[in-house]
Formats: sequence, structure tokens, C-alpha cells
Amino acid sequence: MTSLRTEIATALTAMRERPPLVHGIVGSVTRALVSDGLLAAGARPMLTESVDEAPTLVSAADALLVNLGSLSTDGMAGCRPTAEAAVGQAVPWVLDPTAVGLAPVRTPLAHDLLALGPTAVRGNASEVLTLAGGATGGRGPDSTIGPDDAAVAARRLATDHGCVVAVSGPVDLLTDGARVVRVASGSPVLTRVTGTGCLLGALTAAHLAPATPFVAVVAATALLTVAADRAGDLRPGSFKVALVDALDEVTPTDVAREVDLR
Amino acid sequence: MTSLRTEIATALTAMRERPPLVHGIVGSVTRALVSDGLLAAGARPMLTESVDEAPTLVSAADALLVNLGSLSTDGMAGCRPTAEAAVGQAVPWVLDPTAVGLAPVRTPLAHDLLALGPTAVRGNASEVLTLAGGATGGRGPDSTIGPDDAAVAARRLATDHGCVVAVSGPVDLLTDGARVVRVASGSPVLTRVTGTGCLLGALTAAHLAPATPFVAVVAATALLTVAADRAGDLRPGSFKVALVDALDEVTPTDVAREVDLR
Amino acid sequence: MTSLRTEIATALTAMRERPPLVHGIVGSVTRALVSDGLLAAGARPMLTESVDEAPTLVSAADALLVNLGSLSTDGMAGCRPTAEAAVGQAVPWVLDPTAVGLAPVRTPLAHDLLALGPTAVRGNASEVLTLAGGATGGRGPDSTIGPDDAAVAARRLATDHGCVVAVSGPVDLLTDGARVVRVASGSPVLTRVTGTGCLLGALTAAHLAPATPFVAVVAATALLTVAADRAGDLRPGSFKVALVDALDEVTPTDVAREVDLR
Repeated sequence: MTSLRTEIATALTAMRERPPLVHGIVGSVTRALVSDGLLAAGARPMLTESVDEAPTLVSAADALLVNLGSLSTDGMAGCRPTAEAAVGQAVPWVLDPTAVGLAPVRTPLAHDLLALGPTAVRGNASEVLTLAGGATGGRGPDSTIGPDDAAVAARRLATDHGCVVAVSGPVDLLTDGARVVRVASGSPVLTRVTGTGCLLGALTAAHLAPATPFVAVVAATALLTVAADRAGDLRPGSFKVALVDALDEVTPTDVAREVDLR
Repeated sequence: MTSLRTEIATALTAMRERPPLVHGIVGSVTRALVSDGLLAAGARPMLTESVDEAPTLVSAADALLVNLGSLSTDGMAGCRPTAEAAVGQAVPWVLDPTAVGLAPVRTPLAHDLLALGPTAVRGNASEVLTLAGGATGGRGPDSTIGPDDAAVAARRLATDHGCVVAVSGPVDLLTDGARVVRVASGSPVLTRVTGTGCLLGALTAAHLAPATPFVAVVAATALLTVAADRAGDLRPGSFKVALVDALDEVTPTDVAREVDLR
Repeated sequence: MTSLRTEIATALTAMRERPPLVHGIVGSVTRALVSDGLLAAGARPMLTESVDEAPTLVSAADALLVNLGSLSTDGMAGCRPTAEAAVGQAVPWVLDPTAVGLAPVRTPLAHDLLALGPTAVRGNASEVLTLAGGATGGRGPDSTIGPDDAAVAARRLATDHGCVVAVSGPVDLLTDGARVVRVASGSPVLTRVTGTGCLLGALTAAHLAPATPFVAVVAATALLTVAADRAGDLRPGSFKVALVDALDEVTPTDVAREVDLR
């Protein structure tokens, strides 16, 4: 994994040297953490979802995140034209199908968006299974299925749609269909703070500008999970603050050295 | 109050042992704190307000919160069908009529929602007075009227609508029309942080799954105010972080022992 | 600057003695920080943007903030009627044209709002240049142009529209067209936390109730930048918490003494 560690450090260094403008359609609950986390990590956030503005703003962006969390009526109208604008202008983009399978509008919308060809997809195991056409297991945005249960589905999703798939969990599973990398860094407290999964999707978008899709997904996962390790075993209010601090503090060398790749 | 303290501990223990999925329509300003506070306390939040999704999601929820803070056009359309879905499926629900009396859409909407029969109502004294048909005294979401000024109105509201009413203030007043309990725990800093009242409504919803309505309201109030006591006399930025930490840290036994019941 | 320092202390004292109700249309990403910051500083926030409620709520407010950040479809409909209500009822108001020049709806909307006659305008250099009819330089809500580059544009904007203009940057430039004051307090970490500019607009609105527009703009800028100095050289997660704490902690005398006026 030596060369992958080098690629992680190179991607993070490049992201910080030329801070990408990350345009995001992000659920209202997690918007502030996503924005603060992007800024702390070294990127520049711009979060707007309306159909009147979001598609146009793609032209200024280096990458796009389409996250279906707490989907508003604005976001329902804005998601698809914004993703189409990204495809049309070759802006790399991440699809985060939060709560797909459970929420009625999101499920067909997520499939429509998937058909447009996202550069990367990030979700928990039940969301990835649902998107790949498997059984749904979710009762909400959290998931009791582990990432390895979704490994086959994730590889098929990646192969069928030509994207990189990140399955979040205690051990993250990342695949482009051919390669599979597992990241075992991170903290269980990540699941006790709202929006850390959304933030991982946003950090992935930030790394799509300077890196290839597979390396971008690995580097973003490494960054968030190493930052979580450094935040430590705190209670969730303090952990959230420490996580943002750590995203600012960790160096590319730190991330490449400390990430637990498997 | 010995048996009530026991019931508080039992309710909180049961809530944490089988973490309820709390569906919430919550104002955009306070959504992140409500979500983080629910997670810290041991529940699972799912916050979405659109009419296209919110009513459907009720079927997956253990309890519902309808909070009128910062009411969006989405929320205006989504509130009533979502509350109706809860009633139709016997999902217990909390009505939090934030800023009722002042805001033009919210006042008739709150009365419509009240007529649907919420399991519990939580508001400050002026909001409860307005909802009960008394004079309005508010110039906004805060209130200068104390909870005891609203005691008669609260009991009448509870009796007329068969719900439990929680009047928030320096001393919280909780009643099902027959019984009245006052909770004097808590910190004045709670009013210096946006959304702590909304969070109390959400914690109330979380306890409606495992407990009877009256015990749920008392247990949620006890949990938030004991956590606030433990957060201590901090400035508001630090207090908000410490409050979330304390919601995670306090045990059912702590809450039952430390709450100041009157 | 002795008399100006006295006026700063007087304005902040008056604001806290009779806490103004600040009504705000504020982007969803930054709403929670704006609300928490207003509360910590001593004001009372009420943030709602829908056209069905926002214009009516102006009648209860002491001041209004219209901030175009992350503009929603609700906000697009609500901004203009709400600003018109403020003008009609002589409620002082602040226009914060976030991301103007880049976002297609915001640019004409900001010019429409400007024509209504805001009491004050707050933006970064590229936003002020755009609003004054100069070249746009922005690729998003941040700005690489310094405030002095916008000095001529700011003075013309202030003179032409009879408002006070605040240009935010490493050194803030504040002008009513005749007078120019520069504030060099503050911390570079302010730009690493989402919403500190929005918060400055909100604090400006809070001071418009008790003070003349020019003094209000200077006092709000002094308050935020002195609070930032006191928060110190922290990483961004901790800085955000410390900034809110400092807004609560600083006294009018502290602010008047510590602010770096030029």
C-alpha cells in the first residue's frame, strides 16, 4: 500500500495548494458542519440548491456534491438539473443517496441521478444495497448492515456505472469495481454526530479536482477517519468541535502515515 | 415523588435500550442542535418536512415532532399531512407551537394541529396561553411571562385536548390536566442558546415511544435540565457543546436523582 | 477617534440594555451561528424567510437583516416584500449581498433591494464592487480583493444610496460616503468558519435600533473583531465556540478600548 499512501498525501497536498470550490446540494440539517468541515480541510464551500441558481453555479465549481439528506422541495427540483450541468461541463461529482430506500421521492431520484453517471457514490451499506438494486434494510439514515455485506453490491454498482463507490461503516469499503481498499481508521463517535457521513461525501468532492476518482475517495476517507482518530474518544459535542479542528491540523504526511488501510 | 423518579429512570433506560426513530419537522435554525441532541441522548433523528416525503416517513418512525420554528413554505405544506399520518398510524407526536400568536400562518396552523390531538404540547408561557385561547404576550420566540402565569391555561389545554402540556421557563410546569409537576433544574444559559426549547420537544418525542405521555414529558424535561445543570455556568458557545456532551453522559439514575421536582 | 470609541461603547451598552428583536432572512448554512451570535451579543433573533410570514413579522422587529446567502426559493419570494415592509414601517435594515455577481437570481435581486434603500450594506470587496456596478471578481462567497480596492466603490455606493457601507476583509472599511473608518482588529480564522460575515451583518442590524447608522456599523464591526481577537489563534472548530463565548463576555468598555481603529 506504499504507493497508495503516497497518492493520498499527494492528493491532499494538491487539494490544499489549489483550494477547490465545492458546490453542494446538502440537507439542511448537516449544511453547517459540511461547510465548516470543507473550510477546515482546505476547500471552499458553496452550498445552494434552488433550481434557479444551483445549475448555473456549477460553472464556477471544481466539483459538486449532491446529497439527498433532508431533501427539500427546492432540492427535489434542483438536484437533477444541477447534476446534468455537472455532467455537461465535465465537473466531477459525488452522489450521496442519504435515506434512499425509505423516503419515497429520494429512491427514484437517486436512481435517476445514478443514471447520469456520478464520479463517485458514497453511502452506508443499506443505501448502497438499495441503489444497486438489492434489498433495503434501513429504517432511516443510519444502517445496521456492515460495509462488507455490501461489498458485492458495491463492486457491481461501480462496474455497472463506471464510478467509485464508498461504503461507510466501522470499516469503510472503497472500490472502483476492480480494486477494493478498506479503511479501518475512524471512531465510533462519528456516528453520534449528525452529518459526518455528509461531510465525507463533501471531502470526496473536494479531492476529485486534483486526483483520480479512486485516489480521491481513498484520500477523503483517510482524511476524515484520521481526523476522527485524532479527535479521540470524546463525548459527541466536544468530538464535533475536535473533528473540525483536526481536519485543519492534520498534514498530508500525517494522513498517509496514520490511516489504517487493509 | 419517589415513584415519579423511578418512572423517569425507567423511561430513559427504555429509550436508550431501544433507540426510537424520531421523525421531526423542525425549524431550519435549530435542526442541527435538535439532531445532535437526540443522537447524544440515545435516540435516532430523521428530520424532513416536505409534503412529498414527511407523511410517508411517519410509518417508519416511533414518534413525531412538529415544531413550527422558522416555518418554511415546505413545512407549511408538510405539517398537517404529517401530523394526520401520525394520528392515523397511532404514532405519538409532540406539537411545539414556536412563535404562535405573532406569526400569521403559524397561529391558525397551530390550532388546526391542536385539533388533530397531539400527545403532548411544549411551548413557553405565551405560546401556551395563545394556544389555549388566552391573550398573546409575545414579541417573538422568547417569553417574559412565567410558566405559572400559564398554569391555568395549561391545565385547561391538557383537559380539553387530552394531551400533556409542558410550559418551559425558569421552572418548567408539566401537566396532564389532573397532575401538575414543576421542574426547577436547568440553567439560565439554556435561553442564551438557540434551539434548546426545540430540543426539549424532540427529547419529549423520543420518550413517548417507551413511556406514558405524562412520564415521557417529565423524563424529557428532567433529562434536558439535569444535563444543563451539569453543563454548568458556561458562556453560551461552550455551554452548547457541554450540553450535548452531558446528554450523552448522564445516566438514568443521575437524572432521577438530580432533577429538582416540585 | 476618542469620540468614536465613546460612541461604540454607548451603542453596545444601549443595545444590551434594550435587546433588539432582529428579524433575519439568512442563508440556511449560517442561520444557527447567526442566531447563536445574536443571542450571545445580547440581541434577540427571529429568523424566518417565507413570503407568508416574513413581511408581517417586520412589524414586531427593531431591525431587519436581508442576507442572500444560500438563497432558497422561499427566500427569493420573501426578500423583497420583507424589505418593503421594513421601508414602509421605518424599520432599519441591512442588506448583505452574499455571492452577488456569481449567482444569477441574486444579482438582479440585490440591485432591486438596493433600490429600496437599505440603512446599511455589508459585503466583501467583490460583492461591494459588483453592487456598485464595478467588475465582478468573485468565484464564490469568499473574495481575494481587499477592502481598500473597493474603497472608491463603497463611498460611491454610500453616497448614491444614502446608506452606510461595510466592506469586510483583513482590514474592514466602513463609510457613509463622507467619513471612512478602518478596523484592523480581527483574526484570519474568521474566514475559516462559515457565517462570520453573515453574523457581522446581523450584529450591524442589532445596533441599528439604538444607534445612528454609521455608529451602528462601526460598533458591530468593533464588537465582532474584538471578540475574534479574544477568541485567539485557535483552530476553526474551537474558534467558532470561543467567538460566541467572546461575544457574550466582552463589555462595551472592552470593545471601545481594544478595537484597532485607523
